[in-house]
Amino acid sequence: MYQAEIEVETRGRGTYEITERVAAAVRSSRVAAGLCHVFITHTSASLLICENADPAVRRDLETFMADLAPDGDPRFVHTAEGPDDMPAHVRSILTQTDLTIPIRDGQLALGTWQGVYLWEHRLHAHRRRVLVTVQG
Amino acid sequence: MYQAEIEVETRGRGTYEITERVAAAVRSSRVAAGLCHVFITHTSASLLICENADPAVRRDLETFMADLAPDGDPRFVHTAEGPDDMPAHVRSILTQTDLTIPIRDGQLALGTWQGVYLWEHRLHAHRRRVLVTVQG
Amino acid sequence: MYQAEIEVETRGRGTYEITERVAAAVRSSRVAAGLCHVFITHTSASLLICENADPAVRRDLETFMADLAPDGDPRFVHTAEGPDDMPAHVRSILTQTDLTIPIRDGQLALGTWQGVYLWEHRLHAHRRRVLVTVQG
Repeated sequence: MYQAEIEVETRGRGTYEITERVAAAVRSSRVAAGLCHVFITHTSASLLICENADPAVRRDLETFMADLAPDGDPRFVHTAEGPDDMPAHVRSILTQTDLTIPIRDGQLALGTWQGVYLWEHRLHAHRRRVLVTVQG
Repeated sequence: MYQAEIEVETRGRGTYEITERVAAAVRSSRVAAGLCHVFITHTSASLLICENADPAVRRDLETFMADLAPDGDPRFVHTAEGPDDMPAHVRSILTQTDLTIPIRDGQLALGTWQGVYLWEHRLHAHRRRVLVTVQG
Repeated sequence: MYQAEIEVETRGRGTYEITERVAAAVRSSRVAAGLCHVFITHTSASLLICENADPAVRRDLETFMADLAPDGDPRFVHTAEGPDDMPAHVRSILTQTDLTIPIRDGQLALGTWQGVYLWEHRLHAHRRRVLVTVQG
């Protein structure tokens, strides 16, 4: 059971690829066959396994979420932390707070087009903490 | 590998915090560093890691879901179990049936504002079963 | 730590039950108490734990998703791979790329009405790869 911590300094809303940083934790663990668990300790940013080739995919996901849970939505009562806070919680519960990825031959067994992303849902920059646990 | 069972008597639609009950299972397991897996054995109630400070956040999540998948939606064919049943299945697949949370220093390594909730999606009271597995 | 691979030949968009194939991997592992992890190596198909009795539930889920993220949606920029590709990515991030299910008495501890499904989101047939990891 190997545990590591990743800190991500976001520059505001958007997706930030962390695949290589998670893969580095797996290498450090020296686990050959097992599972890698990734957990984000926040409720206004989340985790995502997503297409890693065309950046337009992630821009379209932003468009989709912006329409589904618009900033400043008048339906929302929880507005004290800003017009983007409640939409951030909605985006967070619709995506993932934790992911588990298989490890084979000492590496993340992701598909060819899969990348691991942190999705910052708040408009402003934040420091986000991600906990990685590797077991084998 | 430590396994426990949590039973939650819901009073109908809404969120029910189970953080302390999951934490108690972790303490019983005496695992210091590892993972805690939480699983709900139902398809019309789900699990959620969500902001635990302002209850308005969870009320806003209800509002959001009620608009996204309204009770009695005429698009739905599966209506034999009532107008809230198919919306409950939709809410369930958009959120989580299982969660895994890291354990550090013998405790759930949740962020400051993270709580673990059971989300009852049916209008009426139900008895819900949650399985907890702790490994370290 | 037991690892197996499941290949699913889809006939295009729709849900394909894989409960029995996952259960067979658990039996092969001879694990009595533990966890079964299921991972799909794609970003345009996903995993789902869903009501397994009335097929209308899964048809209604299709209807819901088809309205939420319609094929050919003019908001989307990523269209090179066809009008159903970006909607497939949206459906994928709103559901699950990985699932973990408890094992008790050598069997998947699913609820009575829970089944495990692969959800093909592309219109055409695809060969999909699912990795199963059993630990106990």
